[in-house]
Amino acid sequence: MKKIAILGSTGSIGQQALDVIRSRLHELKVVALTGNKNIELLGRQIREFQPKMFFSSIKPDINWSGEFLSAEEIAGHPDVDFVIVATAGNAGLRPTLAALQAGKTIALANKEVLVMAGEIIIREASRHHARILPIDSEHSAIWQCLQGEENKPHRLFLTASGGPFYHYSQSQLAEVTPEKALQHPVWKMGSKVTIDSSTLMNKGLEVIEAHWLFSFPFDNIEILIHRQSIVHSMVEFMDGSVKAQLSWPDMRLPIQYALSYPYRWPNPELPHLEWDKINSLGFEPVEYDRFPCLKLALEAGKSGGTYPAVLCGADEVAVGLFLSHRIGFTDIAKLVQKTLEQHSSISQPSIEDVLAVDAWTRDCATRLYAGDSAAYNRRSNSGIER
Amino acid sequence: MKKIAILGSTGSIGQQALDVIRSRLHELKVVALTGNKNIELLGRQIREFQPKMFFSSIKPDINWSGEFLSAEEIAGHPDVDFVIVATAGNAGLRPTLAALQAGKTIALANKEVLVMAGEIIIREASRHHARILPIDSEHSAIWQCLQGEENKPHRLFLTASGGPFYHYSQSQLAEVTPEKALQHPVWKMGSKVTIDSSTLMNKGLEVIEAHWLFSFPFDNIEILIHRQSIVHSMVEFMDGSVKAQLSWPDMRLPIQYALSYPYRWPNPELPHLEWDKINSLGFEPVEYDRFPCLKLALEAGKSGGTYPAVLCGADEVAVGLFLSHRIGFTDIAKLVQKTLEQHSSISQPSIEDVLAVDAWTRDCATRLYAGDSAAYNRRSNSGIER
Repeated sequence: MKKIAILGSTGSIGQQALDVIRSRLHELKVVALTGNKNIELLGRQIREFQPKMFFSSIKPDINWSGEFLSAEEIAGHPDVDFVIVATAGNAGLRPTLAALQAGKTIALANKEVLVMAGEIIIREASRHHARILPIDSEHSAIWQCLQGEENKPHRLFLTASGGPFYHYSQSQLAEVTPEKALQHPVWKMGSKVTIDSSTLMNKGLEVIEAHWLFSFPFDNIEILIHRQSIVHSMVEFMDGSVKAQLSWPDMRLPIQYALSYPYRWPNPELPHLEWDKINSLGFEPVEYDRFPCLKLALEAGKSGGTYPAVLCGADEVAVGLFLSHRIGFTDIAKLVQKTLEQHSSISQPSIEDVLAVDAWTRDCATRLYAGDSAAYNRRSNSGIER
Repeated sequence: MKKIAILGSTGSIGQQALDVIRSRLHELKVVALTGNKNIELLGRQIREFQPKMFFSSIKPDINWSGEFLSAEEIAGHPDVDFVIVATAGNAGLRPTLAALQAGKTIALANKEVLVMAGEIIIREASRHHARILPIDSEHSAIWQCLQGEENKPHRLFLTASGGPFYHYSQSQLAEVTPEKALQHPVWKMGSKVTIDSSTLMNKGLEVIEAHWLFSFPFDNIEILIHRQSIVHSMVEFMDGSVKAQLSWPDMRLPIQYALSYPYRWPNPELPHLEWDKINSLGFEPVEYDRFPCLKLALEAGKSGGTYPAVLCGADEVAVGLFLSHRIGFTDIAKLVQKTLEQHSSISQPSIEDVLAVDAWTRDCATRLYAGDSAAYNRRSNSGIER
């Protein structure tokens, strides 16, 4: 019986993780659930799965005898074997560290954990012999393709759907509204990730994540636009052989693979590819110039230090401002870039450094917006000045 | 130092195997070479690689101190670790058995070995703890995709280029000449395999081979037409995840993988995929009705016994008659079918049974052709009567 804690069980990944667990109740046991503010849903989940422990930022008013502990206490608790980190933003950072330091296996969906603190996270995992299993479809694809391979790969190809605006002009991009951006065509995701997918920031964060997860140099990680989201990523080996992992887009597959690894489980809920519906799989080179968030992410990743933490924090502020109609779509990159320019990076930061930089970033980005809000409110058509 | 015997070193696969070995001379040693009638080329290969042992059906007139032994003696010789079976037709059967019974590792390119005697070959390999590694690009792709997987796959997808005539009508097919058929667009192969590729007989033989190599039921082996020959095959797992193996078509890659396994070697001679040259990968369902050789092969495979041996022998006779302009392209399937209809299958045949059936088949197919040669000489446009 695998004893599982889900951090962020009320989010999209958390809910899908519970879907998978529901189909394997004879070998998966939910021992802890944590949510944020959706206490109504968390209450229902607690009634269904009856976890020993739970947490949420607002304490739910439910009649449940389980212990109310912090996410960090839960992540490192001796009754937990396997921690699904399905939180968002900086929320996963300290709980992930606590889980790794207690030697737990982590299934990681919270991108920012590795982006903000990759060096620390990988070092602590190695020090405590704790495993980090990816849940992102791209990283799961790479991980699946690496199974049984004895040599380091030569190149990684992360595929990107390109989001709904991939073929938009700069002026069309400037006019994108939150309502339009949230109609993402393929994956069922939260609103922050959906916006990040359409700016390609998400793909940039994934490159940084891949760099840390597979200890792989940035220069050998490439991005391919594949609008169908069927090929989830590819690995090229030194002999020129490439392995790709394919499926209909459904996050329950990579979630289940992390849970079933090294085995696979049949699951009638998971769709199988129907080749009579797939005439072709298309690939396009990525147009970096039209997606400055992607460029910023790759630069921040390569620069290292605390730049990636600034990237994450500034993007969260900027996406929040966009979602509340206070800045335009193309302003997201602009605000992230301005915040990065204000930053003096700390090399080999501690976790406290990372969290302090994160707080500084949010303050800085908010001040930059407020100081120049007139410019943003105009929803500039001028694109990104670089 | 891996001590290698190449059976069939003067054929296309044999020559490409020597190409690979040439790039790794510090760890691969050719200890034996065998050819058939191309003694001029065999002589050159012997001078270059200086094998301890050699064989050819016509003894070459060269000044070389190596031992002249039979292919069977070579295959089981204590100085050999690794046998590349790159012969064609029934020639690989007894040497492969000898190698397996001596516990050697076999890299198998000679399709007919498993098609004609799959049950015997797999049983003997298991009994003597000898490994059979595939060299065919499709089976190598499947094998690569299975690395590190703990569970049996759910489905195998063998890709097929479809050959040069895939979109021909029946009447166009009836007019195909040997000259036209030998201009195969993608792979560098011998003439028998090239014709088998354009009738799709080759794909049928590969399905039977996959059945034995991966002990996988026929009903879960599917064929997908993929004209670009970049995706070499795919494996679907029980959770719906699919892995594909891709590369530019170059037989040196699967040959090298069999030699390097479980590792991979860099090889500047092997091309790496350039994604800016691949806009899309196309897939089509296979049209069984226009390719009766494929149907015959699948039926023979499922029927088992000595039917697959008859299939191979009759196809070899028929392709020979086609190449010498004595029957038309669409007559190949007709002659194979008529020969299969004359056969009474033996279940669980011995190797002697298989070879006796092979001899009977060649005689029967030749007699069927001679008895009805007038019909064949007309290069019938009527297609295949089933």
